[in-house]
Amino acid sequence: MGKGLLIVISGPSGAGKGTVVGKLISGGDYALSISATTRSPREGEKEGINYFFKTRDEFEEMINKGDFLEYAQFCGNYYGTPLPYVKQMLDEGKNVILEIEVKGAFQVKEKCPEAVLIFLAPPSMKELEDRLIGRGTETPEVVAERLARAMDELDLVDDYDYVVVNDDVDEAVNDIRSIVKAEQRRAARNTGINKKIKGVD
Amino acid sequence: MGKGLLIVISGPSGAGKGTVVGKLISGGDYALSISATTRSPREGEKEGINYFFKTRDEFEEMINKGDFLEYAQFCGNYYGTPLPYVKQMLDEGKNVILEIEVKGAFQVKEKCPEAVLIFLAPPSMKELEDRLIGRGTETPEVVAERLARAMDELDLVDDYDYVVVNDDVDEAVNDIRSIVKAEQRRAARNTGINKKIKGVD
Repeated sequence: MGKGLLIVISGPSGAGKGTVVGKLISGGDYALSISATTRSPREGEKEGINYFFKTRDEFEEMINKGDFLEYAQFCGNYYGTPLPYVKQMLDEGKNVILEIEVKGAFQVKEKCPEAVLIFLAPPSMKELEDRLIGRGTETPEVVAERLARAMDELDLVDDYDYVVVNDDVDEAVNDIRSIVKAEQRRAARNTGINKKIKGVD
Repeated sequence: MGKGLLIVISGPSGAGKGTVVGKLISGGDYALSISATTRSPREGEKEGINYFFKTRDEFEEMINKGDFLEYAQFCGNYYGTPLPYVKQMLDEGKNVILEIEVKGAFQVKEKCPEAVLIFLAPPSMKELEDRLIGRGTETPEVVAERLARAMDELDLVDDYDYVVVNDDVDEAVNDIRSIVKAEQRRAARNTGINKKIKGVD
């Protein structure tokens, strides 16, 4: 798409996507994609920083125009990743991180085959359960539902490019940095480098 | 093949393969493949350490048995990478480095499609020329011949998995370490990890 890499980080709820992505972003090497949504702004949320806030009509028009890398509905609201913003950052040579749901990841791969899909996995179901319960914000029913969904999502790991087990956050972050570095060195992403070295570019 | 990774490091003469591989090996994380040859041992060279020394008949019998990952003739002598030794180390979970000629790399990929092919490239032809002249051991004719061959070899970079430009040795070594780490995280190399996480393995 552009000169930067599009890195999709996905995986079951409770795998630690937010923490890992937060650490990656804080290093300053990556740009984080901003989602669009039809839900109302919460206190302190700013347009173009936390989300692009859209009406339902606007959002559906964007869907029809193919303006989303991926989108889905949750609890009656649309959430999606607008293509133009991501494309602009990739064109500027920035590596862009998308932190999205498992299903969304495959939508991205379809629209953008050169995207790098990373599945962030918990070390075990027991650990996932402990983390979800430890949050203290979910009811037992919600925890059970998320665990059931995680079981299904784990079976999709083979369709990803990479799998990183989040046992230790710093190690997982280092793994992802290595993956990005390696992908930048892929021969398929460096066509024409022979001419550059020969000085005939 | 085994549990370890087979890493092929190849590229034009003068790209710095020996130095880079030496640094990788010194870290203790990698095993270096030992070549077989029909040339006579030089002073101090030991069987099974520097080379596996073979007669011409022995070597050709090994070729016929398909015992080589790759082989070639230089100056009337055979040189090759024996499969059994590499296979044994991969089975033990070791990552094995092969430092071989560009043509040999493709022989390896054919026999072992899961091998990781890394093309080590010089930053420019000028730099390559300076390095070859700087060695002080090659005649102008040999330098010219190697530069001509490098021009051809550079056109094969697209058939490799990765290209690492050896501008700075430490950076090149780090790039290769990142590539190895990333390859170990490839979903295709971790089939069954979903069952392991689920605890049903």
